[in-house]
Amino acid sequence: MLFEALFFIVPAITALVYNEEEIFDFLAAMLLCVMVGALCLIGRPKNTSIYAKEGFVIVALSWIVMSIFGALPFWFSRSIPSYIDALFETVSGFTTTGATIVPTGEQVAALPRSILIWRSFTHWIGGMGVLVFIMAFLPLSGARNMHIMKAESPGPTVSKLVPKVRTTAMILYVIYAVLTLLQVIFLICGGMPLFDSINTAFATAGTGGFSIKADGFNGYSTYLQIVVTVFMLVFSINFNSYYMLTKGRWKEALTAEVKAFLIMVATAIAIITLNLVVAGTVNALGNAMSFGEALKHAAFSVASIVSTTGFVTENFDFWPVTAQIILVLLMFVGACAGSTGGGVKVSRVLVLGKSASNEIGKMLHPKQVKHVTMDGRVVEPEVVRSICGYMVAYAVIFILSLLIISIDLGNLDYTITHNGQFTTGFTSVAATLNNVGPGLGVVGPAGSFAGYAWWSKIVFVFDMLVGRLEVFPMLLLFAPTTWKK
Amino acid sequence: MLFEALFFIVPAITALVYNEEEIFDFLAAMLLCVMVGALCLIGRPKNTSIYAKEGFVIVALSWIVMSIFGALPFWFSRSIPSYIDALFETVSGFTTTGATIVPTGEQVAALPRSILIWRSFTHWIGGMGVLVFIMAFLPLSGARNMHIMKAESPGPTVSKLVPKVRTTAMILYVIYAVLTLLQVIFLICGGMPLFDSINTAFATAGTGGFSIKADGFNGYSTYLQIVVTVFMLVFSINFNSYYMLTKGRWKEALTAEVKAFLIMVATAIAIITLNLVVAGTVNALGNAMSFGEALKHAAFSVASIVSTTGFVTENFDFWPVTAQIILVLLMFVGACAGSTGGGVKVSRVLVLGKSASNEIGKMLHPKQVKHVTMDGRVVEPEVVRSICGYMVAYAVIFILSLLIISIDLGNLDYTITHNGQFTTGFTSVAATLNNVGPGLGVVGPAGSFAGYAWWSKIVFVFDMLVGRLEVFPMLLLFAPTTWKK
Repeated sequence: MLFEALFFIVPAITALVYNEEEIFDFLAAMLLCVMVGALCLIGRPKNTSIYAKEGFVIVALSWIVMSIFGALPFWFSRSIPSYIDALFETVSGFTTTGATIVPTGEQVAALPRSILIWRSFTHWIGGMGVLVFIMAFLPLSGARNMHIMKAESPGPTVSKLVPKVRTTAMILYVIYAVLTLLQVIFLICGGMPLFDSINTAFATAGTGGFSIKADGFNGYSTYLQIVVTVFMLVFSINFNSYYMLTKGRWKEALTAEVKAFLIMVATAIAIITLNLVVAGTVNALGNAMSFGEALKHAAFSVASIVSTTGFVTENFDFWPVTAQIILVLLMFVGACAGSTGGGVKVSRVLVLGKSASNEIGKMLHPKQVKHVTMDGRVVEPEVVRSICGYMVAYAVIFILSLLIISIDLGNLDYTITHNGQFTTGFTSVAATLNNVGPGLGVVGPAGSFAGYAWWSKIVFVFDMLVGRLEVFPMLLLFAPTTWKK
Repeated sequence: MLFEALFFIVPAITALVYNEEEIFDFLAAMLLCVMVGALCLIGRPKNTSIYAKEGFVIVALSWIVMSIFGALPFWFSRSIPSYIDALFETVSGFTTTGATIVPTGEQVAALPRSILIWRSFTHWIGGMGVLVFIMAFLPLSGARNMHIMKAESPGPTVSKLVPKVRTTAMILYVIYAVLTLLQVIFLICGGMPLFDSINTAFATAGTGGFSIKADGFNGYSTYLQIVVTVFMLVFSINFNSYYMLTKGRWKEALTAEVKAFLIMVATAIAIITLNLVVAGTVNALGNAMSFGEALKHAAFSVASIVSTTGFVTENFDFWPVTAQIILVLLMFVGACAGSTGGGVKVSRVLVLGKSASNEIGKMLHPKQVKHVTMDGRVVEPEVVRSICGYMVAYAVIFILSLLIISIDLGNLDYTITHNGQFTTGFTSVAATLNNVGPGLGVVGPAGSFAGYAWWSKIVFVFDMLVGRLEVFPMLLLFAPTTWKK
């Protein structure tokens, strides 16, 4: 709570600079956070040992409480009049989903600047993980840190860069900050205003996707679009690789996961470019795309979806269905483990693929014993089993969410799209559970989640948290054994 | 080949009875089968030992060759003028998919009776497995039989009812034949003509779904619709349970899988009935369904889809989207292992669910060792791993198929449906890979697969075989190591 009060300083200063009266909304939210935080300090528990279970619960509850209070400025300022909507927007921010509840792009662009920067800043905080941030600054014992880091960091396993967890957290945040700053500089060099640059860099670094313009990124120059494309991919790669690069260990930086990720991205861009050109797809101006134009938009969209950022140049809801299916598949695969991106993660997909091909091999030679290996090391059978468990739990949450929100699908307005209820529902859940942001149909690049009923929005809020925290922490909140002494 | 020649006797006799000239087409196909079969007898290999690998290859190749020759009568008689279409229809028959290539129901109803009975008979042959049939009649050693039975029977494991594999195969076919006969009697009692009854029973027993009427089952009386509903569910249950029933071992008959299956079916019927009534869904006559009517159609559709039969009373392509999503989910789950139904199978879903919930438990108590159990027995870790491998291979085939046929989706005629390309493509693959038959959109109950290009049809032929033979046999055909000495 106290750290969240600190975070509010960023939009408060912005309000001061631009002379916006929303400063009082942020100060009020800060005050509330400090008060509640101070109250909590009174009732401190004596037993502070943290095991796996406590790690999961701390992370899940922290994210929920952070979101509940983070939504206050949106609500206080009447920028988002309904509290449920404000909560949706905040969770979408922290989980780096980037799905907006604000009905139109014009309404987004008309929001006060302090509100816009808070929206983008939630992406930056959530991207690397708020508890990892706190760990970098608060002195906690190593064992305790490790359980929290495991629960909050994306990917099937967490590897410490250095023996001390706290130092690892610090290194990660330094890399994160340096890369963000680098993007701001590149954007300013391309003539983007400072305010836009900071917002864009926050939203790219967290692979969030909130945009501050009515037309997303279509209005920016080709140079700026390319810069954003590159940085979306940069933030999709395991941060361990950047650490290895600074140490000059090139070979260790290019892991099997990073290689697979780059090959997948290149293949997807190639197929979609071809698909757009052959199908004679038209751009926003109504002209058939040239090869270069198709390549630019394909690269931007693939980078945006696979990184689970969700920025948009062209409305891919009107692209040929092959391109759409590839984009939907990329939503599920997502980025590399240990990056700020979402989805199932490339490493999990790789392990599952290798494990399946081993099983098929065993059909032919039943007595053969073969282990799944990654980067020359054996992947422990427990990790493989845990990934299978993850996938099943993920599928069950996907299906239940889809069933609940499907009751609501008939109430949406389908005039902006040629896609139907099934596609809208399927991609709504996919876009929130994988923290992507836009889907197809009503929730496509030109649409929003505004038309859904409040109870559907609660489902999406749950899905976004499940996606960002990778299923288990949120699920364990509902397990009765979690609450037994 | 020789057995297939025998199978042709059924439609040949039908042609004789109804004085149809198609008898010559069947005789010609028979002659060809006998000739090729006799030729194969000359080059018999000396080494006839069969291991797992040979079992898979024998099954996969047998089904392909059976289909190639089984398509001949359709093609010879010009009932289906294109050979690729005839092959599609035959594979759809043997794999008990029931997706038809004949464009309209009226054209199906106008086919010669001998052709119709061959279509339905392919379902009956394919349902329990043609090689299981041959095993029941040919003297082969037990070990050899077991590998073939494992490769052809649906489900994660195969349990022998009695020590001898050959006797097991015989018992299964006796149960199959008795239940089929029982259905014919029930149908005739309801006033259905003998020819219709036999066709319907063949298609129900194999959980196939080829219908011989222009309006499917909508024209039949409520009694007949209920009889078919019940028998579709009867053929979705593990045949081992019926064997246990004949032995009076009631408790062993009601396995965890059967219980889960019945609960799932009841829940799905209840939700869809409610959904149809609340949404005020109209029937084929344009009137809002009454509760009883909704219950009848919901029960028929759920039984039809979960058994992967694919018979139709009402066009569920126009039902509310929640009902549609439930039906699509049921397509994937499918029937019980050891039945004639398709899909992933209830037992696999159960094992995956239990294994995932174990993994979540391990998150809380990392040192706990818990095994997955079914009916009080431990499921071997190898079986769990093999199921995970199965699911991954299944997902990969699903995705690749969807990507290839997506190129073709723009060429279909969407005037019969409000569903779009994405839904049509997704459910086309789901309906063939799970051996269901109808999907949503263009391949919905009122449509057909006729509009797809020949190369898409080849993909669907492959998917139907993959689905019926449960992934591994077809996949191993493409593994280079399979063909090494």
